[in-house]
Amino acid sequence: MPATPPATSIEATDEQLAQVRYDADGLVPAIVQDHASGQVLMLAWMTAETLRLTLAEGRTVFWSRSRREVWRKGDTSGDVQYVRSAHYDCDGDVLLFVVDQHGGGACHTGEPSCFFRAFGSGSGGPAGRPATDPVAGVGRAP
Amino acid sequence: MPATPPATSIEATDEQLAQVRYDADGLVPAIVQDHASGQVLMLAWMTAETLRLTLAEGRTVFWSRSRREVWRKGDTSGDVQYVRSAHYDCDGDVLLFVVDQHGGGACHTGEPSCFFRAFGSGSGGPAGRPATDPVAGVGRAP
Repeated sequence: MPATPPATSIEATDEQLAQVRYDADGLVPAIVQDHASGQVLMLAWMTAETLRLTLAEGRTVFWSRSRREVWRKGDTSGDVQYVRSAHYDCDGDVLLFVVDQHGGGACHTGEPSCFFRAFGSGSGGPAGRPATDPVAGVGRAP
Repeated sequence: MPATPPATSIEATDEQLAQVRYDADGLVPAIVQDHASGQVLMLAWMTAETLRLTLAEGRTVFWSRSRREVWRKGDTSGDVQYVRSAHYDCDGDVLLFVVDQHGGGACHTGEPSCFFRAFGSGSGGPAGRPATDPVAGVGRAP
């Protein structure tokens, strides 16, 4: 278990923040990727306010669409995601956070990644490790 | 330049396809990740029909929300994405495709990844390479 890194805030400029485009509900999709493994862990949604909180607190804070409330990832589960870098795409309508995942994993099922199921009859398993990684393709699908 | 891989179809089961949940507009977000580098390349949207086409043709086919038409990634640009594996998340409302990216890159700007811009004053650069990769964090931000 690595030592808990300090949560480090990211000081985005007003110009950078102005690039972000929110949908009609005021939301933007946020992809979360594990820094160590490269695995895509999950996708959740942010408002302008939870993006601000994420950058300020150095950990992911989402908007729960089902509960309609601010969702500090890991407050209940312990699965806190410390942000290593934060990116916005060419159109400004998708965010990407590269994180140190703490706790049991990103997924509420206990899996490291929410994408543990694959279409087809292949080995499935968590995606996201590069081809050169010998662990690539290790099956975790139920 | 690696040899062009054959496009390989993925035979999803009806049970797997029934897990996918579409939003009120009949769309589901689809994350695309590079198989070789682990980089997150882009996010686009699929309908049930373009998901079916993607699995059948073994290359990503999206729904262009701006043009309101089927968008076979790479037909114009040459930046075809051959699917290595296709995943759906725990809630069934996000897809992940691990691909072999051909052509100049995934982004219409010519960048390998659409997430070439980072918040803050850090090195920025394309995210997604694992920490053990010496190329991690190489800056490409403009």
